[in-house]
Amino acid sequence: MTGKVKTRDRILKTALALFNEEGEAQVSTVEIAGVLEISPGNLYYHFKGKEAIIEALFDEFEEEIRQVLSAPINRSLSIEDNWIFIYIVFEEINDFRFFYNNLTGILERCPNLRPRFAKLLRLKEETATSILASLEQDGAITCSRAERTALASRFAAHLTFWLQFVSLAASETDRRRIINNGVYSAMMMIAPYVPGDRSDFAEILKDYFSAQN
Amino acid sequence: MTGKVKTRDRILKTALALFNEEGEAQVSTVEIAGVLEISPGNLYYHFKGKEAIIEALFDEFEEEIRQVLSAPINRSLSIEDNWIFIYIVFEEINDFRFFYNNLTGILERCPNLRPRFAKLLRLKEETATSILASLEQDGAITCSRAERTALASRFAAHLTFWLQFVSLAASETDRRRIINNGVYSAMMMIAPYVPGDRSDFAEILKDYFSAQN
Repeated sequence: MTGKVKTRDRILKTALALFNEEGEAQVSTVEIAGVLEISPGNLYYHFKGKEAIIEALFDEFEEEIRQVLSAPINRSLSIEDNWIFIYIVFEEINDFRFFYNNLTGILERCPNLRPRFAKLLRLKEETATSILASLEQDGAITCSRAERTALASRFAAHLTFWLQFVSLAASETDRRRIINNGVYSAMMMIAPYVPGDRSDFAEILKDYFSAQN
Repeated sequence: MTGKVKTRDRILKTALALFNEEGEAQVSTVEIAGVLEISPGNLYYHFKGKEAIIEALFDEFEEEIRQVLSAPINRSLSIEDNWIFIYIVFEEINDFRFFYNNLTGILERCPNLRPRFAKLLRLKEETATSILASLEQDGAITCSRAERTALASRFAAHLTFWLQFVSLAASETDRRRIINNGVYSAMMMIAPYVPGDRSDFAEILKDYFSAQN
């Protein structure tokens, strides 16, 4: 039993790395088996096709991202706490970037993932909404209800697509730089709602971001 | 000659419709030929494979989107003018949505499109930057340089990915509703930079948007 569990996990780990590196569409189960030095038949025993592998990887991702998004929301007013939270979300997405890089293609072949992914997007929106509501309550930001709803949607879209946007627009390949850029941009979305001298906050963010890179 | 040009255009028009409806990955050149009631050989005469069709469609899209983004910028302060401009950009993207729905997959198979698409993304950023600079000059918005740069990037990302985000998150299928939602969200990005009573502007946008649907 231990042998089987180990092989299953090794298959998933290898598939994930290959999917992320080369793009899921370019990778076959034969290639995955080859890298692992197991027979295609052995791989088939564990996963009856690439879609089964993708769905198992999605199970793992779904569990991890739910944990991160459901973390007890202790809304400190410090930039550091917010920075780290957004950074971790981007890291999770980056670890499963193959999925985000071919959303439509994968959801076409694995249609049962579609409602589950839609649920994750709505969870991102809900998390953003409660963080914004807490920041509003603490007086850290000033934001009407209409602004908060629209901002939460854009925030969820930003988390979902920013990594892909930066690698396409800037041909940037350093993952850490891409993630830092994503966190900075996410916080700049909130910056205009900080009362008082707003562009001070934007300058603070800019300096903080430059120090990260 | 006229006959050949007509067939070439008919192939592109049919391919575009099929790609948009079913997803580019699901559509074969055999299917396109079948719908047009021409032989696969006849299609091959015009386009030596699906990638050639995709690249010809990209040529058309690139020309159209460049025209829209380079339109003389007559920065009126009216919501209507801004609304229409952003709406047209989203319509262009919607007309070529197959491409945006499988960016990574297509750019992997058509690598010469990668730098051209990166250029389009930067053009979107530049257009956003000059619109914001004009609005700042007219006093319609108050925005520091750092804020403007970050906002222009987010604006370009928003134009690129919003349509896909809405169809995934909300399972919305009415294209007009999706585009209107995109325009509303785009203008809500600018709303916090409007001086004076900011949430008034957000309410105006909300009412305008509801009237469009």
